[in-house]
Amino acid sequence: MPPSQTLSDFLSQNLPSKTRTHLRTSVLPTLLNSITSVAQCLRDSQDIHTAGSQNTSGDAQLNVDLATNTIIHSAVRTCPSILSASSEEDEGENAVQHDPGVQAHGPDQEQYAVAFDPLDGSSIIPANWSVGTIIGIWDGSSALHQPARTKQVAAILGVLGPRTTAIVALRLPESEGSLCFEVGLSASSPDIFVIRESVSFAGMDSVKTRYFAPANLRAAAKEPRYKALIDHFISSEYTLRYSGGLVPDIYHSLIKRHGVYVSPVTPSSHAKLRLLYEVAPIALIVECAGGRAVDPATGEDILGKSVEDVDDRSGLVCGTGEEVGMCVGMLV
Amino acid sequence: MPPSQTLSDFLSQNLPSKTRTHLRTSVLPTLLNSITSVAQCLRDSQDIHTAGSQNTSGDAQLNVDLATNTIIHSAVRTCPSILSASSEEDEGENAVQHDPGVQAHGPDQEQYAVAFDPLDGSSIIPANWSVGTIIGIWDGSSALHQPARTKQVAAILGVLGPRTTAIVALRLPESEGSLCFEVGLSASSPDIFVIRESVSFAGMDSVKTRYFAPANLRAAAKEPRYKALIDHFISSEYTLRYSGGLVPDIYHSLIKRHGVYVSPVTPSSHAKLRLLYEVAPIALIVECAGGRAVDPATGEDILGKSVEDVDDRSGLVCGTGEEVGMCVGMLV
Repeated sequence: MPPSQTLSDFLSQNLPSKTRTHLRTSVLPTLLNSITSVAQCLRDSQDIHTAGSQNTSGDAQLNVDLATNTIIHSAVRTCPSILSASSEEDEGENAVQHDPGVQAHGPDQEQYAVAFDPLDGSSIIPANWSVGTIIGIWDGSSALHQPARTKQVAAILGVLGPRTTAIVALRLPESEGSLCFEVGLSASSPDIFVIRESVSFAGMDSVKTRYFAPANLRAAAKEPRYKALIDHFISSEYTLRYSGGLVPDIYHSLIKRHGVYVSPVTPSSHAKLRLLYEVAPIALIVECAGGRAVDPATGEDILGKSVEDVDDRSGLVCGTGEEVGMCVGMLV
Repeated sequence: MPPSQTLSDFLSQNLPSKTRTHLRTSVLPTLLNSITSVAQCLRDSQDIHTAGSQNTSGDAQLNVDLATNTIIHSAVRTCPSILSASSEEDEGENAVQHDPGVQAHGPDQEQYAVAFDPLDGSSIIPANWSVGTIIGIWDGSSALHQPARTKQVAAILGVLGPRTTAIVALRLPESEGSLCFEVGLSASSPDIFVIRESVSFAGMDSVKTRYFAPANLRAAAKEPRYKALIDHFISSEYTLRYSGGLVPDIYHSLIKRHGVYVSPVTPSSHAKLRLLYEVAPIALIVECAGGRAVDPATGEDILGKSVEDVDDRSGLVCGTGEEVGMCVGMLV
């Protein structure tokens, strides 16, 4: 059976209608449609090359990094409730310059800040592996200096692969519970369809296969605790899936309903992931799926922090709660 | 710069014009275009489900396994020089029933047998990771009971990812040397473009990063030699990339110009890969890129064998020659 429920219907039934009109009818569909455009851009870019520039992390930018960044910024400018935007490809958080005719919301209306990594996984793009787009959506006019657990209200993890899909998580302070669901995106359809109404980790008893994704495995050469954890995964016959793309790696665990992703912080391997553009949105999605996301440097929840600077970095251990607890016990 | 050389021009310049007219103008473009259709089919299939059937390996077939198998068979039936076809989704090798008006070639004309895996990587399709299509092209009217090194004259490794790309290898008995190149495929363009004229492994001295892809890592729990090899990769600070999709895993090493893929055969882990549909075509591509592909059960070259049955199985160690030699030394 083809998926039949539209995003619009699904959100109408599941989101507060009065307080979140713009989130439901403007911000989420606009950002998801921008991921469709990102996928189309990548599909049409057989010629992948460095653009001659660097982002603020010092990474060489690809032509497709710049093109996809432009796509998402253009989408943001059409949303009156998005007041500020920051991207891994830009410097800092900036006020949105809306398109002509789009009147930015005032303080008595819905106001959001978005932070995004338009195209995560540059190293595997030449090999044509699945990559992703990450977006965090924050209540208010800035994502900085805010308690992440309550102020980051939504996140999107889009996978640009053979298909274009995204997992969306929502946790609103005025609502009980949270939502985590998967949508299918297609340039050939104006509608966005919900293909999985609930994305959630399964209990240990009900999974047949246990997955692990060890990031920066080279760090295990110099860090005995990380090596011991890897040895534990191998001797316990976990199944390895590690693409090296943060989005597909996390996405795999969410769809398989089991898995743990480990990006350790060791004396020789510093925290690499960006808290604002990568780790915080992923943490919201993982928590809304019933899992945990912690900083392996401290063992504390990622979302217990606020983001003080767009360049804040973090390690990440996330996935099924039991697995995360085991990893943190061995690493911290 | 966008890619500008068409497949047609490239093959005209690089293939013998008289003996391989049909390979050049019919077989290769038709099969490559079928991969474009496979990608389109997958892109339009947001609803991935089991079809209720099994293939001859006993794997549950997905709806997209069956649909993509039909696409390639339909393409084959338009090629007068393709006399027989076998697919991982079918039973045995069968004579091609050509489309009306297509006159099958006689023994004094070019004759080919094709063997293919239309959609390799079922386990990672739900997570929307890149998967692939594998095709081997053999001289003569059957792929079975033939010396693989000389009779398998061409192979295609197609990646269905954010883009649609394929690596093509050709080694003809009447020509010196071989070809290995990458093409970009697009539903929006009737032309196939060469995006990399030469795909080849680099020497150890010229690579900055060494990659490894350890298949069936769970076998290392019970096989000390495999565990010792993994420990060697880790202590030597190789970079891990392992999607669990055979095609993207091999493709990554070819595009990065370094890497080794290890699918071991151990007492507790039998040879899983299909020689005809998977290992032999990959071996041709790897050899044409200057690498090696060996059976870890014996240490012998994959292409030193003939395929006696469509269900013949094999392990696989392939990649850069030096790395393959090291792995075989530790495993055999």
